[in-house]
Amino acid sequence: MDKLFVIKIGGNIIDDEAGLTSFLKDFSSIKEKKILVHGGGKLATRLASQMGIEQQLIDGRRITDAETLKIVTMVYAGYINKNIVAQLQCLGCNAIGLTGADGNTITAHKRIKGEIDYGFAGDIDTVDISFISSLLKGSDLVFAPITHDKKGQLLNTNADTIAQELATAMSGHYEVVLIYGFEKAGVLMDAENDETVIPEIDPGYYIELKSARVISAGMIPKLDNAFSAINKGVKKVVIGKAGNLPLLIDGKSGTAITNSEQL
Amino acid sequence: MDKLFVIKIGGNIIDDEAGLTSFLKDFSSIKEKKILVHGGGKLATRLASQMGIEQQLIDGRRITDAETLKIVTMVYAGYINKNIVAQLQCLGCNAIGLTGADGNTITAHKRIKGEIDYGFAGDIDTVDISFISSLLKGSDLVFAPITHDKKGQLLNTNADTIAQELATAMSGHYEVVLIYGFEKAGVLMDAENDETVIPEIDPGYYIELKSARVISAGMIPKLDNAFSAINKGVKKVVIGKAGNLPLLIDGKSGTAITNSEQL
Repeated sequence: MDKLFVIKIGGNIIDDEAGLTSFLKDFSSIKEKKILVHGGGKLATRLASQMGIEQQLIDGRRITDAETLKIVTMVYAGYINKNIVAQLQCLGCNAIGLTGADGNTITAHKRIKGEIDYGFAGDIDTVDISFISSLLKGSDLVFAPITHDKKGQLLNTNADTIAQELATAMSGHYEVVLIYGFEKAGVLMDAENDETVIPEIDPGYYIELKSARVISAGMIPKLDNAFSAINKGVKKVVIGKAGNLPLLIDGKSGTAITNSEQL
Repeated sequence: MDKLFVIKIGGNIIDDEAGLTSFLKDFSSIKEKKILVHGGGKLATRLASQMGIEQQLIDGRRITDAETLKIVTMVYAGYINKNIVAQLQCLGCNAIGLTGADGNTITAHKRIKGEIDYGFAGDIDTVDISFISSLLKGSDLVFAPITHDKKGQLLNTNADTIAQELATAMSGHYEVVLIYGFEKAGVLMDAENDETVIPEIDPGYYIELKSARVISAGMIPKLDNAFSAINKGVKKVVIGKAGNLPLLIDGKSGTAITNSEQL
């Protein structure tokens, strides 16, 4: 099986022009097949405020009303996605920017209303493995965190989840390594100290760490996502600093999430 | 050779929600391979004014400064392109939305400064015929009027020109019909009267019409584009009302631009 890297980057590096350029240089140096999934960054919030649109947040999560969907479609699928693609093309990397609507690559449904109505937020249903594989033959893919419901509706979709669903779906055809790049050096014993990276977590150790309340609340969904990917066939998940991409790939930085049985 | 329709629509129909929906229904009914090229519409101007950005116009042409490029990238490549793709997907048409940067499909250079500096406006250099052909095997393409220079710079590019360059480039591999959809019923003898459509114009008649000053100034570049496409191998060019797409395809509406030698 060919190797496939699925790499997610968040707003933090997208907002940092020099950091993004350096990351894209590292990304374009990867010789294997690769998919980049990017999040949003502060530009969407800034644009909303310039346009006088109030952002609704519930428990720190943005509610995607119609105006917000319009903004994230413009910023994520337009500005950020196309600028990343143009930069990668300049670096000799034949990138294609996509949303889930393009080629029907990722379908989702509008999140079912519970106590909170998240608006036009999408939960993923399908990934078109065969079409994505055919595109990967000659190109690298850059996904914006927007999907669709196949009924004409675009949906704002969590980039971590897109990366995990893509990695999982593709793992039947490729040896997939999923990398979550963010602002910290990895999963930390002490959230304030980048030198306390935990090099590896397997399911048993994860239970231990959780019960000792070592892991910060914000990290739990990322780790749950990572273990879910591992259980569904992804070879390896690495969580670490986006700026350290070559080291994350070489296993010299970040936290590796592994299934102990695979070792 | 397979038939390929390259169809351009302008801002007029993009700003008209019901008109666009009806057009996309007609477009998705075309059984042959097809490429849609869309222009902008008023949304970019509206967004600029909401953001407090002044638009520079010289002789009615928008100057693409850095802020304007940002806006058109968001609106054309993001909002308009992805909403069209999602609507087409709903209609069973497997659309992929692209800019020239995606897959390096269309490269351009920044327009050389003459008396006027148009800013980040692109003049097209290359079209990747082979990659576009491979995508057309299973998908229909939707191009936003944005290209890139392969050096990392996105460029705002005239949608009429993109349609003409795509049609011309693809004419070695397909029997190409290029359709310019706009708000009028075709090239008119009397610009104010939609019943005065000229059904066909060949090069000789074009010279006649121009010397008699029948054709309005705004129509001249469109017709020059059309004849240039015909001379470079495009089978047929039709200019007419975007809302009449099935009739334009059947030759029952609009103005056909033909090379008399081909008749």
